[in-house]
Amino acid sequence: MKNDIEIAQEAEQEHIVDIAEKVGLTEDDIEQYGDNKAKVNMDVLEERDLDSNLVLVTAMTPTAAGEGKTTTTVGLGQAMNRLGEDCAIAIREPSLGPAMGVKGGAAGGGYSQVIPMEDINLHFTGDIHAIGIAHNLLSATIDNHMFQGNELGLDPNKVGFSRVVDMNDRALRNIVVGLGGYGLPREDNFMITVASEIMAILCLANNIAELKERMGEIVIGYTFDDEPVAAKELNVHGAMAALLKDAIRPNLVQTLENTPAFVHGGPFANIAHGCNSLTATKMAMAVSDITITEAGFGADLGAEKFFNIKCRYGDLSPEATVVVATARALKMHGGKELDELEDEDLDALSGGIENLEKHIENIQKFGLPLVVAINRFPHDTEAELELIRERCEDMGVEVALSEVFAKGGEGGEELAEKVLDLVENQESEFDFLYEADKSIKEKIETIATEVYGADGVEYSDQAEEQIERYTASGYDDLPICMAKTQDSISDKPHLKGRPTGFTLSVREINISAGAGFLVPITGPVMTMPGLPETPSAEDIDIDEDGKISGLF
Amino acid sequence: MKNDIEIAQEAEQEHIVDIAEKVGLTEDDIEQYGDNKAKVNMDVLEERDLDSNLVLVTAMTPTAAGEGKTTTTVGLGQAMNRLGEDCAIAIREPSLGPAMGVKGGAAGGGYSQVIPMEDINLHFTGDIHAIGIAHNLLSATIDNHMFQGNELGLDPNKVGFSRVVDMNDRALRNIVVGLGGYGLPREDNFMITVASEIMAILCLANNIAELKERMGEIVIGYTFDDEPVAAKELNVHGAMAALLKDAIRPNLVQTLENTPAFVHGGPFANIAHGCNSLTATKMAMAVSDITITEAGFGADLGAEKFFNIKCRYGDLSPEATVVVATARALKMHGGKELDELEDEDLDALSGGIENLEKHIENIQKFGLPLVVAINRFPHDTEAELELIRERCEDMGVEVALSEVFAKGGEGGEELAEKVLDLVENQESEFDFLYEADKSIKEKIETIATEVYGADGVEYSDQAEEQIERYTASGYDDLPICMAKTQDSISDKPHLKGRPTGFTLSVREINISAGAGFLVPITGPVMTMPGLPETPSAEDIDIDEDGKISGLF
Repeated sequence: MKNDIEIAQEAEQEHIVDIAEKVGLTEDDIEQYGDNKAKVNMDVLEERDLDSNLVLVTAMTPTAAGEGKTTTTVGLGQAMNRLGEDCAIAIREPSLGPAMGVKGGAAGGGYSQVIPMEDINLHFTGDIHAIGIAHNLLSATIDNHMFQGNELGLDPNKVGFSRVVDMNDRALRNIVVGLGGYGLPREDNFMITVASEIMAILCLANNIAELKERMGEIVIGYTFDDEPVAAKELNVHGAMAALLKDAIRPNLVQTLENTPAFVHGGPFANIAHGCNSLTATKMAMAVSDITITEAGFGADLGAEKFFNIKCRYGDLSPEATVVVATARALKMHGGKELDELEDEDLDALSGGIENLEKHIENIQKFGLPLVVAINRFPHDTEAELELIRERCEDMGVEVALSEVFAKGGEGGEELAEKVLDLVENQESEFDFLYEADKSIKEKIETIATEVYGADGVEYSDQAEEQIERYTASGYDDLPICMAKTQDSISDKPHLKGRPTGFTLSVREINISAGAGFLVPITGPVMTMPGLPETPSAEDIDIDEDGKISGLF
Repeated sequence: MKNDIEIAQEAEQEHIVDIAEKVGLTEDDIEQYGDNKAKVNMDVLEERDLDSNLVLVTAMTPTAAGEGKTTTTVGLGQAMNRLGEDCAIAIREPSLGPAMGVKGGAAGGGYSQVIPMEDINLHFTGDIHAIGIAHNLLSATIDNHMFQGNELGLDPNKVGFSRVVDMNDRALRNIVVGLGGYGLPREDNFMITVASEIMAILCLANNIAELKERMGEIVIGYTFDDEPVAAKELNVHGAMAALLKDAIRPNLVQTLENTPAFVHGGPFANIAHGCNSLTATKMAMAVSDITITEAGFGADLGAEKFFNIKCRYGDLSPEATVVVATARALKMHGGKELDELEDEDLDALSGGIENLEKHIENIQKFGLPLVVAINRFPHDTEAELELIRERCEDMGVEVALSEVFAKGGEGGEELAEKVLDLVENQESEFDFLYEADKSIKEKIETIATEVYGADGVEYSDQAEEQIERYTASGYDDLPICMAKTQDSISDKPHLKGRPTGFTLSVREINISAGAGFLVPITGPVMTMPGLPETPSAEDIDIDEDGKISGLF
């Protein structure tokens, strides 16, 4: 089979004006970025109602075997179009930096990709660059404020807003800035741009005015008296919003089968909520009958945050959920290693299915109908697939085989039909798992026990103190955005399957007051990746005619 | 009078497809970025001949009073169009970061601007972001190489390739990276993106293949044995070129009077050559009969480098030069202060004209006909203007009054007619001031004595040693790109007018082997500006409808 970039470069693209027309958008509704990309004007959201059926694609706990969530999302959209449904996709846009480190596309794969693949994986329409500059404007203003006299009394040791760059740059994880007599020397760090709170805010703001207001609420640090300082006190949030005037508008592209796709925003799924922008999801809903979207990592992280955070801020009510699983990943959760997955092993599979079952239960707690999509791999046996089907049937859940990687939309028709059946015949009783006005501890404990299956939660002294401080400052009514390992439903990465008998440890709690959530930290969080010994950038090249090779 | 952004927002823009058509470019020749910006495809350069008349706009030594070089360039282009000439403009694109610090547009002013002004001054088509990421990919790869075993034996204390960000961020001038156990701690710094050698390379490369090759030649540092290490040894110059596939293509926009303008590239005019991209100049030449372009700072820096570096690498032969001067700036060179310029002062003016005379002589040394453009200000008196005219006449040079700031193209018709007269009736005998194969010292001394009027050159021990080393490594045949103060024709900023009796001091010599020049450093060079006490970002805002205010 051809590799992703070869498939993408052979695709028969339609002009973006024609893609827009498919969903009733005129040339006046979009701003073209070349022939195959466009920004959609925000007016569209005001002019239309959003009565589309919203379907979330989430997944079991990820493993090194890969589960193919974005590929399934794209393939499902393509399949819907094949069935004659009026469907649009909303997914995250990839960060450029990591593409220079390790191979692995972030725009689907095989015959279920969004295109133009090179553009989407490189600068695309410049959103992430704009976010980076808006972020670094605030960073520079913070140090400049301290340099120019520090009227606000910001404690240089308590600045909580670092700098960003869209590159895997290990040497910037821990730095000292302000040396050489240019201001106050202090410890600082760079994060990769998508870890910026600005990215999370851009993905939760409904419009430019809300974006600006939320950026003003960012807590940039604390005074010498331990009072929080909001970004608006530095008065550059208007300029930051001006820098994001185009970035807030959703990007319209197409899939390999010319299905309209809104690819926009991509915050981290641990320190942030891991979903594409609210504006993109709403834009897809404004122009289609069925909207397919996704959330990062497994359902314990991505789906939980999609429901409790994104749906809350966006007033969204999803109709159905797809949980992606693979026989290979289930076997890994049942104890097998990555190099042992080609042989049938019903015992390991049976053990591993507990992971899937827990995620299914969790989705059901939100009142949502769901279908399990088995992303089929060549070595999967009939007996293995039958076992998954049986166990899901025991829970009253349908299973569909998905072969969208190898076959495109055609390979997702069974899944699409089952999703349509859910949407048409099963009532969604969607509700949040907690009310935002509960106490910080009640909210954390609800997620820990109900979603993760923990026996309880223990807090470090620092976390206890922070809870007290946030409560006193009135930040206690924010939703919770848990920073937890993606490798286990628990906070212990090695606990596979369905962990029980554990206590969730909260080390500290960060505040993202602009994005609008509190972030309990339960394990190490890496916000700046490093390059490997042989970075994938070494394989990337461009020829005289401008054709790119080696990208994934 | 309205301010720049108000004038720009009221302009009657034509669709970029119509602007392209004016110069014979079809929809297939361009890639639209919205309705008013486009990238032009490189094929155009291969398909057409470049027999346009190339006119350089340069200036006297700048002062705090401002001289309006870009405004004159834009206004002259507009005037040419009013006269029915087939004219295109090629100018630099502004860096976003400084716009957040101090007010002052970089896309012309008054009724002689390029538009869309907000876009051009903010992200535009993403070129500078792309340059920043390509740069930082190489930076990250350098530290990663040392972290992963340092096979090349790079001396961490001799890394000569720092990091960049497009923001005025004083705290990043001197930093320590690699702390916390993530690699080798070492001193480093961030420059503002436009100071990157990648920017200089992008502006001197004729095509993507040459861009890639030149980036491979960047000297990233030295080994423990003092051998230079080229970027190509890290093997990411292909990925860097891939990241610049769109950035290398010139941007097409329009002036307030709908004159086609290529706004592309903007390297520093001290450590680099300070001209818009070669591709933009050539594109303007490919589609017009008259091409108006500019170079940074005064003629001692901008024009000298335009002629000796850009014309050399681009095989360009200019036909005429415009030297912009103002009565106000001439009076400052004659000893007046910024707050003393409103009163007539023929003595001060007479003294200051020596500065203009030296620049005129210099242009003539390159064999080029020229006209002096007096950018007229309200308080200029007839006697002052007459004095300038007389002194120029004594040198056989015509003077034209320019009122393009207040009147647009109409205010530049006299200038345009005099430029046309030069192009049609005076023969250009353009030649470089030195041959590239002369010794490093001979080239430096030619510029110092012939252009600056120095008695000679003195070299520090470090510079002597570097000259020896570069000569041994075969870098001695590169042209010279002098890093010198813009405030004086000499290397002493306080020496106004026409300095004499001084010796140029060369402290050290940097190498930009990718860009293709050696950079003698003759004074302090600031590659990272800081924000002032009240950054202009505090005035910038955006309203609910996305309208930006406070930008200049």
